[in-house]
Amino acid sequence: MIKVAIVGGTGYTGVELLRLLTVHPEVELTAITSRALAGTPVAELFPNLRGHCDLHFCEPDVEQLAAGDLVFFATPHGVAQAQVPELVRRGVRVIDLSADFRLKNIPLWEQWYGQRHAAPELAEKAVYGLPEVNRASIANAQLVACPGCYPTSIQLGWIPLLEAGLVKPETLIASAASGASGAGRQGKTELLLAENSDNFRAYAAAGHRHLPEIEQGLRRVQPAGADAPKVTFVPHLLPMVRGIHATLFAKLQSDCPAEELQLLFEARYKEEPFVDVMPAGSHPQTRSVRGTNMCRVSVMRPQDRDTVVVMSVIDNLAKGASAQAVQNMNIMFGLNETQGLESPALLP
Amino acid sequence: MIKVAIVGGTGYTGVELLRLLTVHPEVELTAITSRALAGTPVAELFPNLRGHCDLHFCEPDVEQLAAGDLVFFATPHGVAQAQVPELVRRGVRVIDLSADFRLKNIPLWEQWYGQRHAAPELAEKAVYGLPEVNRASIANAQLVACPGCYPTSIQLGWIPLLEAGLVKPETLIASAASGASGAGRQGKTELLLAENSDNFRAYAAAGHRHLPEIEQGLRRVQPAGADAPKVTFVPHLLPMVRGIHATLFAKLQSDCPAEELQLLFEARYKEEPFVDVMPAGSHPQTRSVRGTNMCRVSVMRPQDRDTVVVMSVIDNLAKGASAQAVQNMNIMFGLNETQGLESPALLP
Amino acid sequence: MIKVAIVGGTGYTGVELLRLLTVHPEVELTAITSRALAGTPVAELFPNLRGHCDLHFCEPDVEQLAAGDLVFFATPHGVAQAQVPELVRRGVRVIDLSADFRLKNIPLWEQWYGQRHAAPELAEKAVYGLPEVNRASIANAQLVACPGCYPTSIQLGWIPLLEAGLVKPETLIASAASGASGAGRQGKTELLLAENSDNFRAYAAAGHRHLPEIEQGLRRVQPAGADAPKVTFVPHLLPMVRGIHATLFAKLQSDCPAEELQLLFEARYKEEPFVDVMPAGSHPQTRSVRGTNMCRVSVMRPQDRDTVVVMSVIDNLAKGASAQAVQNMNIMFGLNETQGLESPALLP
Amino acid sequence: MIKVAIVGGTGYTGVELLRLLTVHPEVELTAITSRALAGTPVAELFPNLRGHCDLHFCEPDVEQLAAGDLVFFATPHGVAQAQVPELVRRGVRVIDLSADFRLKNIPLWEQWYGQRHAAPELAEKAVYGLPEVNRASIANAQLVACPGCYPTSIQLGWIPLLEAGLVKPETLIASAASGASGAGRQGKTELLLAENSDNFRAYAAAGHRHLPEIEQGLRRVQPAGADAPKVTFVPHLLPMVRGIHATLFAKLQSDCPAEELQLLFEARYKEEPFVDVMPAGSHPQTRSVRGTNMCRVSVMRPQDRDTVVVMSVIDNLAKGASAQAVQNMNIMFGLNETQGLESPALLP
Repeated sequence: MIKVAIVGGTGYTGVELLRLLTVHPEVELTAITSRALAGTPVAELFPNLRGHCDLHFCEPDVEQLAAGDLVFFATPHGVAQAQVPELVRRGVRVIDLSADFRLKNIPLWEQWYGQRHAAPELAEKAVYGLPEVNRASIANAQLVACPGCYPTSIQLGWIPLLEAGLVKPETLIASAASGASGAGRQGKTELLLAENSDNFRAYAAAGHRHLPEIEQGLRRVQPAGADAPKVTFVPHLLPMVRGIHATLFAKLQSDCPAEELQLLFEARYKEEPFVDVMPAGSHPQTRSVRGTNMCRVSVMRPQDRDTVVVMSVIDNLAKGASAQAVQNMNIMFGLNETQGLESPALLP
Repeated sequence: MIKVAIVGGTGYTGVELLRLLTVHPEVELTAITSRALAGTPVAELFPNLRGHCDLHFCEPDVEQLAAGDLVFFATPHGVAQAQVPELVRRGVRVIDLSADFRLKNIPLWEQWYGQRHAAPELAEKAVYGLPEVNRASIANAQLVACPGCYPTSIQLGWIPLLEAGLVKPETLIASAASGASGAGRQGKTELLLAENSDNFRAYAAAGHRHLPEIEQGLRRVQPAGADAPKVTFVPHLLPMVRGIHATLFAKLQSDCPAEELQLLFEARYKEEPFVDVMPAGSHPQTRSVRGTNMCRVSVMRPQDRDTVVVMSVIDNLAKGASAQAVQNMNIMFGLNETQGLESPALLP
Repeated sequence: MIKVAIVGGTGYTGVELLRLLTVHPEVELTAITSRALAGTPVAELFPNLRGHCDLHFCEPDVEQLAAGDLVFFATPHGVAQAQVPELVRRGVRVIDLSADFRLKNIPLWEQWYGQRHAAPELAEKAVYGLPEVNRASIANAQLVACPGCYPTSIQLGWIPLLEAGLVKPETLIASAASGASGAGRQGKTELLLAENSDNFRAYAAAGHRHLPEIEQGLRRVQPAGADAPKVTFVPHLLPMVRGIHATLFAKLQSDCPAEELQLLFEARYKEEPFVDVMPAGSHPQTRSVRGTNMCRVSVMRPQDRDTVVVMSVIDNLAKGASAQAVQNMNIMFGLNETQGLESPALLP
Repeated sequence: MIKVAIVGGTGYTGVELLRLLTVHPEVELTAITSRALAGTPVAELFPNLRGHCDLHFCEPDVEQLAAGDLVFFATPHGVAQAQVPELVRRGVRVIDLSADFRLKNIPLWEQWYGQRHAAPELAEKAVYGLPEVNRASIANAQLVACPGCYPTSIQLGWIPLLEAGLVKPETLIASAASGASGAGRQGKTELLLAENSDNFRAYAAAGHRHLPEIEQGLRRVQPAGADAPKVTFVPHLLPMVRGIHATLFAKLQSDCPAEELQLLFEARYKEEPFVDVMPAGSHPQTRSVRGTNMCRVSVMRPQDRDTVVVMSVIDNLAKGASAQAVQNMNIMFGLNETQGLESPALLP
């Protein structure tokens, strides 16, 4: 059994981790921290966990965290970079679900997040936790930086095209939409049901913090000599709880039949347990992956023109956060990669 | 491994059964029938099952069905009563999720369903599949009639009070609301998203087919000599997919402190794995049971007046249909009653 | 033209008032106050008002308010009772949408709202603004206390039965449900879309502040000598924005055919422009009144038993608050009662 | 008073027309036809019209239709082209909300709609009813072809850029999303609430019938000599009722500061009563136009790169269909263009 603690368990990635870990056969949950709610039973905050989790939220305590095998950070950015160095020094392995260790370019991180980075040397050593690209490094990593939700869906959608150098890197356009759980469990007026039900809007179109992560990730898979990718990324807020749908556009470098695009995607993801290439002509639905670690993708070439359209869906809290974190844990600890992640999505 | 077939797999109770059975460790799915879609891969209709279910829908074939251990009927009423007799004669066990075998009073069934009953003798022998009342009989049953969704939530809410004779049986009022999946996967105008999102309404207030089932079930648990229960039952359609919330009202026979009501409920369901009595003062939420076999109940006595209010929530497709069917299967085949039903609800 | 000001324009009743008043042909809007947002253009906060309202929020100023004909208070309880006395002294007429002047029994108000009432003598003089009961008094009132949303829907549903003494006053049960806009425009976690979409729950079942208002209102319409009404009231939160649906239950005093109940309702509301008695057997839908001042009601007697079921729908922000306030204004100023309130509901 | 009839009043564009026309001060509704529901009161099908519309659906009758001033066709494609020629011959004016007369290129129409066009000569003479482009021609038109919903939102978003020749016409990408009412009032399984609530997906990405209409409309506004526009258009289905959001991408021909783009849009639409250019940096919301004829647009240049992003929102049933039809009627009959279309959107 892996002894696991969670730092910051009161948000949506926290409760999603708990949902998955409380029934994971190889995990023993030892602690869930929350300064604000220390002493409160976890199942009082999250009634779905009644009967599944007897823990109370507790104050963070380095000794206790360091005594286990693995610590998940499900905290806002800024927290992990302050606390992880000590844990790493003590030899604990860490999976950080926040943005703290995703970017290798520290000045870029500091520019987008508006604060100094407290542990730049760790950011250097952290392994980016996208198993479809980085599986071997994840297996041996001490610190894994779990990808953001939009970056996961968008990278998985474009990776086959960029690896193959099939599209022009300066023509990348990502129009994506997320369920409201992606904005977190915060009491903000603009996230009320009364503000968002029967409503749809873009946000942060001028610049979203996931943009540099997306471009860094795509850059990494390009063949040598390729131009750096430039992505226009517009996120939208959906009147629903869970799910990300990324609609991706790119211009072909040269003619490539739709059938070959389909075969390329199928080949690239044939061995991947959590990427499902849909049959040609399909439109993946967010509900088909709800609550699961699956990413479903389709590729099309409308009107046989020179723009390739890729559609990619994930559950923002699952493959976009907590379930991918569990996938990384499985890889890090030599478990079956799909363990605890086998359930089909709830449909309808 | 139990060899299991499903008759009528294209509706919502069908796909919910498949979601649960494809990952049940003791089940081997042998066939899923659908006359209309024979030959179509199941995962083509239900994309959440891609990678989980390789079966194709097939024509119903008595030989094939009779060769297994258990057949689920997830069909509209009228189908099971025509096909089950032959299967029972051949010794297969059957769990019927439809209304065909729920009522013992055949004339009453014929009155509410507007057709002659084709197998009244089987209705007599069928065991009503509410484990919290009927566990022992279910274990040995050849034919189990799975309760309706409203009747499950309403009976579980009132059983402690009626068993104890604490409320006046002629004062029972059930105001209940269901997600739209309860109306089935039928292309009817009145079930469109455009008709029901941001909308709420009652339906069938003059008389819903679940009323006689509710009254029959409550009658069975009353102490000898009690007056027959008379229920006023108004169902409503919620602008959401899954979940039933029953708000139940009854007048006390005589004074009974709220604390005693709370203790009564806790004692009654202490050993039940799938009924969770919430702490005093709680309001159960439908999402806390989404996708699970759990029923969560609260009991209150507002203003210390003489009306007891019980709130009861289930997932209409799970504890209200398919998960309860799996619970019944577990009991019938001597498995751990919770097997395959352990996952916490998806929240948010 | 009536010179109108609004105190507290940043909540949902405020924006709903603005939606109606900006196109009301007899109204000139002079000021909308908000301490927090003074100086901000109203249309910046509420983009639906771009092109319809050029005002900026301003600091409340008694001189300015007193210079007009009418002031609406769309504030949390406690505000109006502090500010209205001075305005009344200066001769301005006031319509208060908050709970401050609804209850005549001041100790009861203080008990439910947990604070001393600052203007009990005004509460005494205030006219309860339910035109279907109080039209004549409203016409001459200086201070009108607009009814709460639940009390409006529930009283309009029961008034015909209680006026006629047809039901037992101690058997009244109201199971009601409201869209999330009823909880106001406040950044609370429990009102997030991610917490409430695809979810349904009761709240405040142990006691909601609208209960004494409902009982006071029903008491007023009973014939002399009748027992005081006792209402069991359970409100629920719907996963949608607007609309209240009240499902009302009461035991008949003595036999009364369903047809007579229907005729009673039709007769009672024949002259009412904003109460629509639906044909026998109908189930009113909340969307059929969305954005309008209409209340639609149905009456039934299921199974010809002794419980009468009434269903009543309103838009909580419209007939339940701001449109009813405009109806009261029309009455107070001798306008056509329906002026500015004629548009049909948006459907779908 | 203009004597107006509606052919095909049972769909969503029909009821939306009725909502607007029943309170339009210059309109007298004379007939609403429906073969299937002839004899049924309109308000029985659409309860929001109770008290607003006393008409019954009637059989279509050319004599009756020809006796009025104007006939709206709110029918599926194929109907108007069969019936309009006779009405035009008799001198009645017609506004067709269907796709029958939108395309000038008849072979293209026949290719996308899979049937022969029955009145190609009328398609030639029909005026495309986008007032922001075609106001003068509409005023004198006998037959107006109302634009589709997506084409309205997309053209209004791109017109300033294409008129000015600022963007490369072969780089146009439209990622748009519509509420479910856009799919019409048809009892199809894939439109059920249970299939679409808490779900998001693209559809018809390989080719949607609105594509040729969009390209035809954009072509018309380009300066002489410009290359033909090529649009990649991916529509999506939103889990909500009303609203279209178009997110539009195009590469700049040459550098152009964001401020100039903003000024260009403001200048282009300064005199337009129904296009509202939002302040720089804004994200328009669909709810801000719900139930209105307004189109709200924003323009951005993210990261100062060479891709311009335009966001455009309309109500698909209003500016995307029936309200724009009323705007056209106002223009055709010399009324104030905004008459009957002045109400602000319902928000929240």
